[in-house]
Amino acid sequence: MDYNYPDDSYTLHTDAYELSMMQTYYKKGLANRKAVFEAFFRKMPFENGYAVFAGLEHIITYLKNLRFSKTDIDYLKTTGQFDDDFLDYLANFRFQGTLRSVVEGELVFNHEPLLQVEGTIMEGTLVETALLNIINYQIMIATKAARIKSIVGDQTVMEFGSRRAQEFDAALWGTRAAYIGGFDSTSNVRAGKLFGIPISGTHAHALVQTYRDEYEAFKAYAETHHDCTFLVDTFDTLRSGVPNAIRVAKEFGDRINFQGVRIDSGDMAYLSKKVRKMLDEAGFKDAKIVCSNGLDEKTIQNLQMQGAKIDVWGIGTKLITAYDQPTLGAVYKLTLVEDETGKMVNTMKISNNVSKMSTPGKHQVWRITDRVDGKSEGDYVTLSGEDPRQLDSLYMFDPNYTFLHKTVKDFVARPLLQDIFVDGQLVYEQPDLETIRASRATHLDRLWDEYKRDLNPEVYPVDLSQKCYDNKMAMIQEIHDYVDKI
Amino acid sequence: MDYNYPDDSYTLHTDAYELSMMQTYYKKGLANRKAVFEAFFRKMPFENGYAVFAGLEHIITYLKNLRFSKTDIDYLKTTGQFDDDFLDYLANFRFQGTLRSVVEGELVFNHEPLLQVEGTIMEGTLVETALLNIINYQIMIATKAARIKSIVGDQTVMEFGSRRAQEFDAALWGTRAAYIGGFDSTSNVRAGKLFGIPISGTHAHALVQTYRDEYEAFKAYAETHHDCTFLVDTFDTLRSGVPNAIRVAKEFGDRINFQGVRIDSGDMAYLSKKVRKMLDEAGFKDAKIVCSNGLDEKTIQNLQMQGAKIDVWGIGTKLITAYDQPTLGAVYKLTLVEDETGKMVNTMKISNNVSKMSTPGKHQVWRITDRVDGKSEGDYVTLSGEDPRQLDSLYMFDPNYTFLHKTVKDFVARPLLQDIFVDGQLVYEQPDLETIRASRATHLDRLWDEYKRDLNPEVYPVDLSQKCYDNKMAMIQEIHDYVDKI
Repeated sequence: MDYNYPDDSYTLHTDAYELSMMQTYYKKGLANRKAVFEAFFRKMPFENGYAVFAGLEHIITYLKNLRFSKTDIDYLKTTGQFDDDFLDYLANFRFQGTLRSVVEGELVFNHEPLLQVEGTIMEGTLVETALLNIINYQIMIATKAARIKSIVGDQTVMEFGSRRAQEFDAALWGTRAAYIGGFDSTSNVRAGKLFGIPISGTHAHALVQTYRDEYEAFKAYAETHHDCTFLVDTFDTLRSGVPNAIRVAKEFGDRINFQGVRIDSGDMAYLSKKVRKMLDEAGFKDAKIVCSNGLDEKTIQNLQMQGAKIDVWGIGTKLITAYDQPTLGAVYKLTLVEDETGKMVNTMKISNNVSKMSTPGKHQVWRITDRVDGKSEGDYVTLSGEDPRQLDSLYMFDPNYTFLHKTVKDFVARPLLQDIFVDGQLVYEQPDLETIRASRATHLDRLWDEYKRDLNPEVYPVDLSQKCYDNKMAMIQEIHDYVDKI
Repeated sequence: MDYNYPDDSYTLHTDAYELSMMQTYYKKGLANRKAVFEAFFRKMPFENGYAVFAGLEHIITYLKNLRFSKTDIDYLKTTGQFDDDFLDYLANFRFQGTLRSVVEGELVFNHEPLLQVEGTIMEGTLVETALLNIINYQIMIATKAARIKSIVGDQTVMEFGSRRAQEFDAALWGTRAAYIGGFDSTSNVRAGKLFGIPISGTHAHALVQTYRDEYEAFKAYAETHHDCTFLVDTFDTLRSGVPNAIRVAKEFGDRINFQGVRIDSGDMAYLSKKVRKMLDEAGFKDAKIVCSNGLDEKTIQNLQMQGAKIDVWGIGTKLITAYDQPTLGAVYKLTLVEDETGKMVNTMKISNNVSKMSTPGKHQVWRITDRVDGKSEGDYVTLSGEDPRQLDSLYMFDPNYTFLHKTVKDFVARPLLQDIFVDGQLVYEQPDLETIRASRATHLDRLWDEYKRDLNPEVYPVDLSQKCYDNKMAMIQEIHDYVDKI
């Protein structure tokens, strides 16, 4: 079967129920009703104190190209689930809505809107699956990368996970997210081409096996590359690998840039100390030791505690799959919808589980920082139209434990949701990737250390404005009244 | 930045070190040396007794389209890491090698070759990353799906995970692998289009929220769809959702096919029993109860033990991300390589860790079954050219604990590695997906129950032939001698 359609599109990259609902809206004359949807997540990833936003680049491309191709419509027809007039409507569908989003590299927290789609109910419905699919993955990877980066400090971390990623797109977008999160390079060459991420990599065991002689293999590599890092654990790291690397480095002298050696198996703590000593004694004090083998922030910390002499970290599986928590679980909820009279009305899904309730209304998120020291006081979610910049003091309270509160003065309020598409037009110009990557570091500087430790961080406040809170409480009461009447 | 090149290709979807090694081979005149690479995994996924092979469809497409585009070469030039003559070579590169593979739907086990690439050292090197990237994900999902299917028996399982998958490709290929593993349908419409998987889905909470009245929402849905499953937990499942669903089902009668209700939150055991009673009392004994909410084989078993009245299962996050083990960790090793005299010689990576050692040589895997009852006796890995079908009895022994052995008589030996590409030509015709899916069930029938239980299964034997074993031992000795001489 050939699944490669010439007019392939990602418009059908959506859940079937989105199209089922759209058919109902269309047939019942609701297709032009306005609606606001917002995406947020409920639990901090990896129990980290902050998350790093990523995914907007892919979202922009997805929305720019959102139209049903001829074979898309042909396929939908074959399912027998959709009426012809509805399919005609889909054939002419274009995304004319507005997308507001946090930008990439920004720090984000649970229970605040990260994406906001404002448009017809049709537009908001169709895009749910793809938008969540993108941010649920990319935020995890950017955050995991930032956690790892925070442990290694100024040392270099290289992304090596392509072969262990969950299919091609994860390898590609995952390494871009890792770069935003603070990684220094990738092994994925296509990511180098498409996004300008520096590529890195040396050689595998197969090179040594092909020559069946480690010295000959290293020599061949040195004859064909200027920058040389030799992989030393094919046969025996200490007895064969490192001595051969040193021998070749000495023989080639200035003809190569001997960067160091890589160890991919064995006891990293023990081996790295021994190897460091061998390199130093041979006069290669600047040569780096690169390690890679099932590493993440926990194993790195442990190696550091053991005094391992590792300079560069190659990180694969545990980063690129977000191994300890493979999805963020972000959700996308209808928060405001036009009623039959043309009025925009609040809406929410109610639940016995407090953390599963959404917050009705259309929102803005404000990052509140102290004007003097520049540090974050918390995030403040308002209804759209409220502007805390006009206030002298801000009363901030916990939306669940309302007796927990503080009043903030002399603050700066910065809105996080920015216009990306307005009425279908892309109005946001993505900064280049280096700028995005640098912004993450700047944002982290503004966060108190207590939020940044990798274990048991302090909980960062995400508060609702009084209006936003009152609006939510009124809505909950309204639904209870509705249910009581049944 | 626009990353959408008109001549986009997946040929650069490879690790940088593959290209670095290829440059060495090319510059040193080794580009035409023949080599054999084999991929295998070391640990059974989810500690399951078997794994289900998937990924070949994507591998075929990848290899068919393997050529460096103009912008690929232009990009490589900009890195400064590659010489012009090597880049000219790449520009003309085509995959002319042979791929042998286990076919999709087949059961596979650890420490046996699943893919075998025979060609030039260049061909085998370039494709490593993509091949592993594909099977490391798809085998996990097909296996996880088979585990879930084994628990639900004849009940229907629907794949609902797109929004929680690790980016687009995972959603698409993951649901195909889940279908091979035994799932019945997908919510991903594009997977329906590309692979012919049945699509399923009803409506979300947003439909009810849009109408702000559950009865009106269900009625609108019933007026616009023949098959109706109503989502009943938007406001209150028992007090509002189910009564409204029943009301609409009664009012519409034969005008709709009332399939049942879906519950997406709350206590599934408690709610499903109550809902079953309400549906039965209303005369809808055939109406199904669909549940979805963080389910996997463990939670399903637990719900079954509690007597939950659930008929259809919607499975998302925990399947599509292989939540409890997000990667298989398959590796790809050079096992045979042409030396300077034109002779093919054994090669392996040695390691202090027994399970990390590869097995030198070029292999075939034989599934040994009893001729009478058709049940599997184990898998038997031979050197290429050995044919156990010519033997009357087969001596099978554990390659690590060689004192564990048995002699099998009256057996059938079936080779698992099949020719897919021969000298660059695709010679294998993929069966349609339904055939692949059905084959998994047939293969499972041939496996003893002891290998199929989901907890602590018996270990399935994967043995080496005497020749294959002797070849490996000789190679280990050879490497030890080499290291001792340094």
